[in-house]
Amino acid sequence: MTSDRKIWLYDTTLRDGSQREGIALSLEDKLKIAHQLDQMGIPFIEGGWPGANPKDVQFFWKLKEEPLQQAEVVAFCSTRRPHQNAAQERMLQSVLAAGTLWITLFGKSWDLHVTEGLQTNLSENLAMIKDTIEYFRSQGRRVIYDAEHWFDGYKNNPEYAITTLQAATEAGAEWLVLCDTNGGSLPHEISQIVKEVNQAIPQIQLGIHTHNDAGTAVANAIAAVRSGVTMVQGTINGYGERCGNANLCTLIPNLQIKLGYDCIEAEQLTQLTKTSRLVSEIVNLAPDDHAPFVGRSAFAHKAGVHVAAVEKNPLTYEHLQPELIGNQRRIVISDQSGLSNVLHYAEKFGIELAKQDPTCRQILEKLKTLENQGYQFEAAEASFELLMRSALGQRKEMFQLKGFQVHCEIHRDIDHFEGDALATIKVEVDGKDLLEVAEGNGPVSALDQAIRKALVKFYPEIAKFHLTDYKVRILDGTAGTAAKTRVLVESSNGQERWTTVGVSANILDASYQAVVEGIEYGLLLQSSLKTKVTTI
Amino acid sequence: MTSDRKIWLYDTTLRDGSQREGIALSLEDKLKIAHQLDQMGIPFIEGGWPGANPKDVQFFWKLKEEPLQQAEVVAFCSTRRPHQNAAQERMLQSVLAAGTLWITLFGKSWDLHVTEGLQTNLSENLAMIKDTIEYFRSQGRRVIYDAEHWFDGYKNNPEYAITTLQAATEAGAEWLVLCDTNGGSLPHEISQIVKEVNQAIPQIQLGIHTHNDAGTAVANAIAAVRSGVTMVQGTINGYGERCGNANLCTLIPNLQIKLGYDCIEAEQLTQLTKTSRLVSEIVNLAPDDHAPFVGRSAFAHKAGVHVAAVEKNPLTYEHLQPELIGNQRRIVISDQSGLSNVLHYAEKFGIELAKQDPTCRQILEKLKTLENQGYQFEAAEASFELLMRSALGQRKEMFQLKGFQVHCEIHRDIDHFEGDALATIKVEVDGKDLLEVAEGNGPVSALDQAIRKALVKFYPEIAKFHLTDYKVRILDGTAGTAAKTRVLVESSNGQERWTTVGVSANILDASYQAVVEGIEYGLLLQSSLKTKVTTI
Repeated sequence: MTSDRKIWLYDTTLRDGSQREGIALSLEDKLKIAHQLDQMGIPFIEGGWPGANPKDVQFFWKLKEEPLQQAEVVAFCSTRRPHQNAAQERMLQSVLAAGTLWITLFGKSWDLHVTEGLQTNLSENLAMIKDTIEYFRSQGRRVIYDAEHWFDGYKNNPEYAITTLQAATEAGAEWLVLCDTNGGSLPHEISQIVKEVNQAIPQIQLGIHTHNDAGTAVANAIAAVRSGVTMVQGTINGYGERCGNANLCTLIPNLQIKLGYDCIEAEQLTQLTKTSRLVSEIVNLAPDDHAPFVGRSAFAHKAGVHVAAVEKNPLTYEHLQPELIGNQRRIVISDQSGLSNVLHYAEKFGIELAKQDPTCRQILEKLKTLENQGYQFEAAEASFELLMRSALGQRKEMFQLKGFQVHCEIHRDIDHFEGDALATIKVEVDGKDLLEVAEGNGPVSALDQAIRKALVKFYPEIAKFHLTDYKVRILDGTAGTAAKTRVLVESSNGQERWTTVGVSANILDASYQAVVEGIEYGLLLQSSLKTKVTTI
Repeated sequence: MTSDRKIWLYDTTLRDGSQREGIALSLEDKLKIAHQLDQMGIPFIEGGWPGANPKDVQFFWKLKEEPLQQAEVVAFCSTRRPHQNAAQERMLQSVLAAGTLWITLFGKSWDLHVTEGLQTNLSENLAMIKDTIEYFRSQGRRVIYDAEHWFDGYKNNPEYAITTLQAATEAGAEWLVLCDTNGGSLPHEISQIVKEVNQAIPQIQLGIHTHNDAGTAVANAIAAVRSGVTMVQGTINGYGERCGNANLCTLIPNLQIKLGYDCIEAEQLTQLTKTSRLVSEIVNLAPDDHAPFVGRSAFAHKAGVHVAAVEKNPLTYEHLQPELIGNQRRIVISDQSGLSNVLHYAEKFGIELAKQDPTCRQILEKLKTLENQGYQFEAAEASFELLMRSALGQRKEMFQLKGFQVHCEIHRDIDHFEGDALATIKVEVDGKDLLEVAEGNGPVSALDQAIRKALVKFYPEIAKFHLTDYKVRILDGTAGTAAKTRVLVESSNGQERWTTVGVSANILDASYQAVVEGIEYGLLLQSSLKTKVTTI
C-alpha cells in the first residue's frame, strides 16, 4: 500500500558508491552493507554489474543463501552493443544469470555520447534501448531505466533526449531515472527539466540520480522530488566517484522529517546514524564528523551563549531532534567557552560545581589562558577534567617529575639507518625518588616506556594502559623547528579511551605532559573518585 | 563600478569558520589566511569579535602593521545588552577600538530568542538593534546587520521579524544579512522568504548567511542570490560549527562560472584551489579530496573508455574546465596514467625525459614503493624532483651523513620547566669528515642547527636558508608512539619556498631526512642546473 507521498529509495553504495577512490569492497563487505540497508527499509539495493567482475557475480549468488528480508536486490548493466542481437549478448546473459527480479539498465540520452562515445547513429541507440528492455521483459524481469547524462543531453538536444525515454517506456520500463551523470546541474535547472519530462511523458514514474560536482546533489534530488519524481537514488555517506553521489543519510531526513514524504518507518529512521558509521567502518574511511544529521558534530554546541539556550529549549539552536535519526546532542569546550560550558562539563565529569562558585570563573580563566598558549581541550577532555579537579583541590598528586634525559644516537647514510633512543627519568612517588631507564625506537616512545616502567611499580594497573594514538601539530608554523608543539595522546585501558594534551617548545616535553596526564587520568578512572565511563 | 550582476563575497572563516571543532587558529594563522583571502579578491573579511578573547584584539592591531591590499576587514559583535546605554557598553568600546571602518552587528529576529534567550521584551530588542547601529554610525562606522535566526524567526512570527529589519534599516545599516543560523532551511523556503523580504523592505541591499545542517548550505545561498540578495557570506572549505557554513570554494565557481554573476576576477578564480588547500594546511586539517571544484578527486577519471572520451572531448565527462579554478584533471592510477604523471612533473621541473626512456618507469616504481611506505610527494615536490634527478644521475652528492647524536635533558616540575637539547653531527664533505655540535630548544631544532652549522662552511648560501614550516603526522595511528612518523619541512631562501618530506619510525630521523633534502634543494635552486622558481 502506498500513499501519494511515497518515495522509493534506491541505494547504489555497492555499485556507484564503490567507485570512490580509496574504496575497495570485499564480498563480505558487500553482504554486510546489503543486510544493513535491508534492515533500514531501503526498498531497492543495487548490487553491481554481474559479469563485470567475479566479485559481483558471487555477491548475487551468496545473497540467495542469505536472502534479504524485504529489499529487492537489483542488477545493473548497460544496453546491448550496437548492431547486436540482445538475446545473444553474453553480457546480458550474465545479468539474467544473477537471478534478480529487477534490472537497472542504463542507456544514452545525449546525442554527443551516442555519436562520439558509442560511435553509432541516433536511431540505433533507440533500438539498443528498446531491444534490451524488451528482451529482459520477455524473460520475466522488471526494468528500471537509468537515462545516463540526462540533463546535459536534454540541454543539448531535448527532442532526441525525449525520444530515448519514449523508447524505454514503450519497451516496458517501469521507472525512468533521470541521471545528472557529470553532476554539474543546479536545483532550478533540475526542477524545470523534471517538470518538462513529466509533461512530455506523463504516463510513467520518474526517478532522480544526482552527483555532487556542484555541491548540490542533495538539493537537486529534493528539487526533483518536489517536481514529481517518486524514486531517489543515492549512496550511504554520499560515497561515489569524484565528489560523490547524493547522500542518502542527508536526503532521507530531509524528505521524511522536513518535507513529510514517506520513505522508511520512523523506527528504521533511528538507525540512520548507526548505518552511516557502520558503512564507514566497513569501507574503512574515517566517518565525516561534520556530515549533516549523522555526523558526530552535527548537534555539537560550542559557544557559551548557545549552550545556555540549547539546554533551556533545544529548538532555539537545533533544526530537529537528533534522536529521530539516532544521533545525539554534544557540548564542546573551546576558547569561546562561557561559564555554562564549564558547568556542563562539570556535570558530565560527575563534579559538583555551582555557577556562583568563584572557582567556576577561575576554571574558565585558566582554560582561556591555556588555549591562548596553544592548548586545545575540545579534543582532550581528560586533560580538562584534570584541570578542573586541580582547581577544586580534588587532584591527588600521584607522582612528581624531577627530570628526564633522552639520548638518541643515529647512524645513517643514504641507504642504511641504525638508531637507538634511550630515556632516563627521575620521579618522586610517596616521598621516594626513583630513577628508571628505557629504550624505544624513537625518543618519544623511549620516554613513554620509561615513565610506565617507573610508575607501574606503584600503580600496577598501569600495565593495562596503552597508547592508541599520538598526534603532533606545530603551532605558529613560521618559526620552523623552533616553534611550539602541541601533542595529543589517546590512551586506553582496554575498555575506555581518553585523550590528553601537552604544549611546549620542546616536542619531548609536550609529549611528556600528554603521556603523564594520560596515565594520571587512567588511574583516576579506576579510583573511587570517578566511576563514570568517559569515552572521547 | 559595479554591474547589476555584482555579488559581494563576505568571508567568515576567521570567525564562524573557526568555530569548527578541531580548529584553533593562532594569531599567525589568522593573519596568513586574511592575506590570502585579500589576494583572492574577497571584498569583506570578518576578523573576529574584538574583546571576546585576547587573540582577536591582537589580530586587528597586527593588521594595521601589515595592512590588506583591498579587502575590508570587519569586526563582529552583538547588539548592546538590554536596558544599557550603548555608548557606555565596554564590549562596544572594544569593538570600536579595533578601528575598522565596517562593523557587522548581529541581533535577534526570532521572538522566542528575545524572550527566552535575552530575557527581555520585544520592543527592547528593537531598541537594542537601533541604538547600537546608531551609536556605531555616530562614530563614523559603516554597519552590516546580521539578522540571526532570520528564517526560523520569520516562519514563527513574520510581522515581528520584519520590524527588526526595519529597525536596523532606519538606524543606518547598509546591508541586512538573512542568517539561517540553525542551518535547517531548504532552498525553496529561502527563495520564498527572500522574495517576501525584498517586497517588505525594498530600499536596502540584502545578504545571505547559511549553514549546512540540511546539507543544502550552498544551494540555499544560490537560491537567495537568484531571489535578489547581493552579499553572500561563507567560509573557505565550508568550515564552521556543526556541519559547517556555506562553502565559498563551491559557491564562487557556481555563482561566477555557472550563473554568470560577478564575484572576483577570472585571474583570482584560478587561485581558488590553492587557497582551499593552503587554508586546510594552516588549520591542519586534511583537505577534502572529494570537495566540489577544488578537491583532488573533483576531476579524477578512471582509466578506460572514460579517459579516451574525456581526452577527445572533456565536456562529455566534465561539468566545467578544471583550469578555471586552478584545479586539474587527474587520471586515477593505472600504469599508463602513472607514466604520464611522471612526464608531467618532469616538464614542470624542467627535466628532459621521454616516455620511451626506461628511467621513466624506474621513477614510477620508486615513487610507488616510497608512497607505499608513507612518503607523500604531492605536498613535497622538491623531494620528488630530487628523486627524479637521482634516478637520472643528475643529483650531485654535496655531503654525506656519517651519523648524529641528540641529547635532551629536561627538568620539570608542575610549574617550572628547564630544558636543553644538544645535537652532534658527523658529515663528510669533499672527502673530509666534519664534526659539529649545536644547541636548540628541542631535539629537532638542535639537529637542524648542527646540520646548518656544518654545511655553511662549504656552502655559505645556506646562511640565507631558513625553515618556514614543520609538520608532523603519525601514520598508522593505532601503533601509538611507536608508529611511523612523516615530517614535512618547508624551507625558504627569502624568495622561493619549497617542501621536502621524511618518513621514519624515529621522529628525529624523519626530521633529519626532510631538513637535509630541504638544504640540498635550496643549493640546487641556486646552481646552474636549475633556474626555475618552484613554489609549492
